[in-house]
Amino acid sequence: MRPNVTVVRLGHRQQRDKRITSHLGLTARALGANHFVLCGDNDQGVLDTMTDVTENFGGDFSSEHHAKPMSYLRHFSKQGGTIVHLTMYGEPHDSVTKDIPTDTPIAVVVGGVKVPGEIYKLANHNVAVGHQPHSEVAALALFMSELMGGVAGPEQFPGARLQVQPHPSGKVVIDRNEDS
Amino acid sequence: MRPNVTVVRLGHRQQRDKRITSHLGLTARALGANHFVLCGDNDQGVLDTMTDVTENFGGDFSSEHHAKPMSYLRHFSKQGGTIVHLTMYGEPHDSVTKDIPTDTPIAVVVGGVKVPGEIYKLANHNVAVGHQPHSEVAALALFMSELMGGVAGPEQFPGARLQVQPHPSGKVVIDRNEDS
Repeated sequence: MRPNVTVVRLGHRQQRDKRITSHLGLTARALGANHFVLCGDNDQGVLDTMTDVTENFGGDFSSEHHAKPMSYLRHFSKQGGTIVHLTMYGEPHDSVTKDIPTDTPIAVVVGGVKVPGEIYKLANHNVAVGHQPHSEVAALALFMSELMGGVAGPEQFPGARLQVQPHPSGKVVIDRNEDS
Repeated sequence: MRPNVTVVRLGHRQQRDKRITSHLGLTARALGANHFVLCGDNDQGVLDTMTDVTENFGGDFSSEHHAKPMSYLRHFSKQGGTIVHLTMYGEPHDSVTKDIPTDTPIAVVVGGVKVPGEIYKLANHNVAVGHQPHSEVAALALFMSELMGGVAGPEQFPGARLQVQPHPSGKVVIDRNEDS
C-alpha cells in the first residue's frame, strides 16, 4: 500500500508564485500524492491546472484551497495524521524518512514566503533535502521519491486519456479517445 | 570521483521564467553539478543569484550565459562529452542512468518553451523522470540524485561562510565570518 499523502502549500501569492505553485502541485501528483491543499491566495488557475492534467493523464488526484492552513494542520494532527515540514534547516531526509509511519495519512508542508513559527513545533518531522538553498519543488520531489520508493508508475494513473510511451529519440503519446 | 556535470537551460525568458530558471540553477548546484549554462535571454539577475549563493554557501559552482546552445552542445559532444536531454517522452531515468558514462563530462539539457527538434538526435540519451507532466525542476533533481547517488553533502561545498546545522525543530546557521 502506498502512503496516503496530502501536500500543503503555504502562503501562495497569485502573481508571484503561480508557476512555482503549479510545479509543486504537479510534482505532488507525479510522485504519487493523493491531494493538494493550496493556502494563501485562492488561485483558481492553479487548481484548474491540476484538474486539467488529472482529467487528461488519469488518477484520482484532487486539490482545494484552504484559507486557514494552521487550523487545517492542527485538525489533521488531531485525527492521527503525521505532519512533515520541508525546510532546509531540518534533519536529513535520507535518514529521517524511514521513521515516518506510512499506514496513516501524511501531510507534507511546503513553505511559502512567510512560514508561521508554529509549524516547526506542530510538525512531527522537520525535514531537509540537503542543507543548501535550492528549490521547494526539488525538495518535494526528492522527499516524495524517498517516501514513496520512486516516481509513480502508469498503474497509479488509471483512466488516463493520454499516455506517454517511452521512446529513445521521439515523442509518442497514445490518445485513447482517438483509438475508440 | 563524482561526475563532472553541466546543466544547460534552453530558452530562458527573463520575465516569465526568472524563478523557475533560478530554481533550476540552484538545484543543479545543490545536487552537485559544476556548471550552469543559461540560454535564451541573457538574464544577469539569474546569474547573480547563483554567484551570491555560491559565495555564501561554498563550493566552486560557476555559471554563464551562452547565446547559441546548439553550437555549444555540438562542441561538447565533439569533445567526447555525453549529452542527456530531460524530456517526459524519453526513456525511464531509473533504468537509463546506469548506462551514462561518468568518467567524461555530462551535459544535462533542460528544455524551455521551445526545444529544437535537433536536440532529440544530438542527445546520447533522452531521459524521462516519470511520464507525467510535472516540473523541469523536479525532473532535474530526481535525475541528478540518481546520477550522483544522492544530494551533495557539506564536503561538496568547501569555503562556505554560512553552514546550516540540521535541527529537529529550529533554524541553526553557523556564520564563519562572525566566528572570526
